[in-house]
Amino acid sequence: MNNHMKMAVLGSGSWGTALSLVLADNHIEVNLWGHNPAIIDEINEQHSNTTYLPNVELPSLIKGYSDLEEALKEVNTILLTVPTKAIRDIVKKVSKLLINPVTIIHASKGIEPGTYKRISEMIKEEMPSHLLTEVVVLSGPSHAEEVSLRQPTTVTAAASQLKVAEYVQKLFMNANFRVYTNTDVIGVELGGALKNIIALGAGLSDGLGYGDNAKAALMTRGLAEITRLGSELGANPITFSGLTGIGDLIVTCTSTHSRNWRAGNLLGQGKSLEDVLDNIGMIVEGVRTTEAVFHLAKKLEVEMPITAAIYDVLFNGKEAKVAVDELMARTGKRETIN
Amino acid sequence: MNNHMKMAVLGSGSWGTALSLVLADNHIEVNLWGHNPAIIDEINEQHSNTTYLPNVELPSLIKGYSDLEEALKEVNTILLTVPTKAIRDIVKKVSKLLINPVTIIHASKGIEPGTYKRISEMIKEEMPSHLLTEVVVLSGPSHAEEVSLRQPTTVTAAASQLKVAEYVQKLFMNANFRVYTNTDVIGVELGGALKNIIALGAGLSDGLGYGDNAKAALMTRGLAEITRLGSELGANPITFSGLTGIGDLIVTCTSTHSRNWRAGNLLGQGKSLEDVLDNIGMIVEGVRTTEAVFHLAKKLEVEMPITAAIYDVLFNGKEAKVAVDELMARTGKRETIN
Repeated sequence: MNNHMKMAVLGSGSWGTALSLVLADNHIEVNLWGHNPAIIDEINEQHSNTTYLPNVELPSLIKGYSDLEEALKEVNTILLTVPTKAIRDIVKKVSKLLINPVTIIHASKGIEPGTYKRISEMIKEEMPSHLLTEVVVLSGPSHAEEVSLRQPTTVTAAASQLKVAEYVQKLFMNANFRVYTNTDVIGVELGGALKNIIALGAGLSDGLGYGDNAKAALMTRGLAEITRLGSELGANPITFSGLTGIGDLIVTCTSTHSRNWRAGNLLGQGKSLEDVLDNIGMIVEGVRTTEAVFHLAKKLEVEMPITAAIYDVLFNGKEAKVAVDELMARTGKRETIN
Repeated sequence: MNNHMKMAVLGSGSWGTALSLVLADNHIEVNLWGHNPAIIDEINEQHSNTTYLPNVELPSLIKGYSDLEEALKEVNTILLTVPTKAIRDIVKKVSKLLINPVTIIHASKGIEPGTYKRISEMIKEEMPSHLLTEVVVLSGPSHAEEVSLRQPTTVTAAASQLKVAEYVQKLFMNANFRVYTNTDVIGVELGGALKNIIALGAGLSDGLGYGDNAKAALMTRGLAEITRLGSELGANPITFSGLTGIGDLIVTCTSTHSRNWRAGNLLGQGKSLEDVLDNIGMIVEGVRTTEAVFHLAKKLEVEMPITAAIYDVLFNGKEAKVAVDELMARTGKRETIN
């Protein structure tokens, strides 16, 4: 299948570049589009992207493009790796340039503030249906740096039709990069987005100086509450026990590289939200997700005590220690997921 | 309920001592029995147990006993914290000293080699039924050291009758120690025992120099296979998503204090099993559990590829790198738990 296959990857950050490498390792030609001309030039001239993936050589099958129309030529499968807030805009632009329908794979993690829409919903809203074969989500526990070093990694490809998920599985699967299929698009997308709330909480606990017991409790009970919300929104609860649920949660909560963990950690040390966001200097997706999910849970009457506690720390000036101690002091409960 | 309440705790290691502290914090008198007279003397004279919990002061509500009969006087609830292999012997001795029936709580994690029996099954076999009100298992993500420092910790109390689990919940629950109830005794006991296999695997992966992606994959797919086996043995699969499943798995796989993780780590670095066991100098429960579970899974025809790979490394001299690479090279799968 992969002979003379060509794909477009939109987004030349660390994840877009690392996934391009996986595709090139599978002998797929990659048109890698990005909005920063200096990075595109470096990809074409130096075969590297040192801003995002230092010390990695890019195969010549990866070609950089600054022009979206050129990047989309002769392509029927597109991988999107742009941030959540850029999704609608890029899909609109793509749809204007297409003649034939495409399969869109996305590897972004987030929920749109205000509308509570998932990425695949946003894509479907912006793309005329006659141009869209199917949307597939690719997600799982995967630091881009490790993928670019060909370290063992597993992810999930989810599409409502199994055969489309299997198509994407074949594109990416190789000896270092193992792809599982799933048909629960809702559960896979929500797992990736909601885990960032719990990563903030894990950072908070570590920042307070609490130990492994407290962090494991937060992660486990956090998983229980995102599973509750996910089920309410139509996900299969089992998905949250998989790679895109607990797997991604583990990678995000136990790595000091995670922006969300780092933000929580600084808050736990007593810093204000403004100071934390200044310090990190980039968007902390979990802060926006916490706000969105807190209101969504209220609307749907889903009990999410950990999300509510983190919301109070972020937006109501509650001391982190008081919030965690209150979580511990709740009445004795029966342990259930639903 | 706890006024003038008295309990016996059998086993004066780190876990028995830390749980005695929790009970004493709840104003329960504790008769702490151990077989090492020097430790018992230190508990009574210095109010400490520096061998197992350095830098912790024990309240005077905890009294040490070397004589089992004295420790059991006026007691209707017993907490067992002895190693798996000592369970049958201690329960036999206890049953000969009792006149009135007791509730036995156990906090041990293991499976009996050869018989594949869980701890509660061993207890019931050794104790005449007229002397046994009920067996309750107490398990969860809990390093004893952190519990003794009153750091936030959550555990599960499981009994076939909910009201008995709730009785145990009330005994232990306080501001630092949060207890959930569960009626799935099988699932709670299996989670605690089987997670040690996956901890060996996580250590193996770290020892090979693989990254967070590989470790998260091993933990997630490991959870899937212990859930498969657990379901076959009568557990509720949801239990493995809780504190005694994924929670305990997280604590064990991400802590360098875990003997099982350390053993795997040394194997991953190329050491032989003999060298590893010599180096650690104590029983590595996960090694025996891997052997037992490998044969049990074969007998029951449950697919457990990670357990089989670890078994091959431990007992068939397979190179760790080859075993992990073979796991990655398996045919593309659909992601399911069952």
